Amino acid sequence: MPRYAFKVEYDGRPFSGWQRQADLPTVQGAVEAALARLEPGPHTIAAAGRTDAGVHARGQVCHADLARDWSPFTLLNALNHHLKPAPVAIVAAALVPPDWHARFSAVERRYLYRLLNRRARPTLEDGQVWQVPRPLDLDAMREGAGHLVGRHDFTTFRSSICQAKSPDKTLDALDIDRVEGPGGPELWFRLRARSFLHNQVRSIVGTLERVGAGAWTPDDVRTALEARSRPACGPVAPPYGLSLVAVGYPDDPFAEDDTGRA
Amino acid sequence: MPRYAFKVEYDGRPFSGWQRQADLPTVQGAVEAALARLEPGPHTIAAAGRTDAGVHARGQVCHADLARDWSPFTLLNALNHHLKPAPVAIVAAALVPPDWHARFSAVERRYLYRLLNRRARPTLEDGQVWQVPRPLDLDAMREGAGHLVGRHDFTTFRSSICQAKSPDKTLDALDIDRVEGPGGPELWFRLRARSFLHNQVRSIVGTLERVGAGAWTPDDVRTALEARSRPACGPVAPPYGLSLVAVGYPDDPFAEDDTGRA
Repeated sequence: MPRYAFKVEYDGRPFSGWQRQADLPTVQGAVEAALARLEPGPHTIAAAGRTDAGVHARGQVCHADLARDWSPFTLLNALNHHLKPAPVAIVAAALVPPDWHARFSAVERRYLYRLLNRRARPTLEDGQVWQVPRPLDLDAMREGAGHLVGRHDFTTFRSSICQAKSPDKTLDALDIDRVEGPGGPELWFRLRARSFLHNQVRSIVGTLERVGAGAWTPDDVRTALEARSRPACGPVAPPYGLSLVAVGYPDDPFAEDDTGRA
Repeated sequence: MPRYAFKVEYDGRPFSGWQRQADLPTVQGAVEAALARLEPGPHTIAAAGRTDAGVHARGQVCHADLARDWSPFTLLNALNHHLKPAPVAIVAAALVPPDWHARFSAVERRYLYRLLNRRARPTLEDGQVWQVPRPLDLDAMREGAGHLVGRHDFTTFRSSICQAKSPDKTLDALDIDRVEGPGGPELWFRLRARSFLHNQVRSIVGTLERVGAGAWTPDDVRTALEARSRPACGPVAPPYGLSLVAVGYPDDPFAEDDTGRA
């Protein structure tokens, strides 16, 4: 059975997250249902990142085993046809080796968290940014963020229902930049790691917002980290500002892909 | 009665355009209703650009006369409170002289049209871009666009129901750029003029797309312009790719404004 990798973009709002659940709309469920229109199922696909309810993706990656030899181009178009009208799009497709795995072959995940820093509610960015009407001290946030980069026990910054065996993770990058967004000033939090714990990004962003607002000092972030205790965490930022932007592999399966190009 | 100017952002999708209509949701109607919550109405506001159904705005400008002396800051927050949950936001507010007029004092309008040039439907950009799955020849489009810049009779490029007295307009700029958007390659059409005719931007963009696709030559655009005939126009691009991004005045009423800042 040939194995195919897909790069998937979605608006997380109408979904109860990536992972299939009985009786709830999920992105995995939508993609598997589209696959079933091409070949009799059931299909079970594996993804690099199991995003939470309301979290978006620009570059989620998943794989599926199919019975027929499909050209990736035909597969992309057929899946997109059957995904309509769900806000899910296959933006690239590629044939991969049978032992390639969207989750286990991945060596890097990149997330972007968008915070809209203005007084008025978002309109055109509604559901894609966290609006914070307070002034935020970027330097203080960066100083706080500095305590989190590197290898740490992130117990404080993971959900109590996180199923990862170990709370030890290496956060390779946590950059915060002021960006002039289409609706005004935004803060972009860009995080990069081999893998993340459940709610780790949102726990970090919500805590750093408290630093920006002056409610926490940058050193309080270190104290919270060293407490290795979930209650030491700041508030968890809302899901809709977050998106999984890219997944890295030793060899990019989409490197020579142009199936999604116009 | 003090006069206030407002900079307004909105998602045009749920509205039948800017201009008030009986029994239809419009942006003007939403803003006037919010004003009526502050001071007994009826209120009639004037806007710089009467955008069509589905067209968005980042920087629409309107003005209103109120009985009370409001601080612009209070006014902005109160209006935004009463506009909820409509996707309309007052992003700046300022006191202006009694003879200042959002429409008649304006000396420049800037529009942006976003075209998403990829095979898959948009998800997170749905309703904010026109998706075109064909390759487009940017150089040819720019050459065609060159025929439209300057002062011309734009009869070909205006709606048959356009109410402007004259079809003569000066198009000061029509730039087309390839931009790497969040969901892939986009073409951004940026148009600037003192004022525009009804459907002028969408008629131009739809025609230039035909040039990009190779169905029209760049010279066909000149022929169409010189025909001064509505049927000579190409297809009209859909409204949802378009937004009114800015309105220019001899003195920017919002120059010293920080009411909308966090």
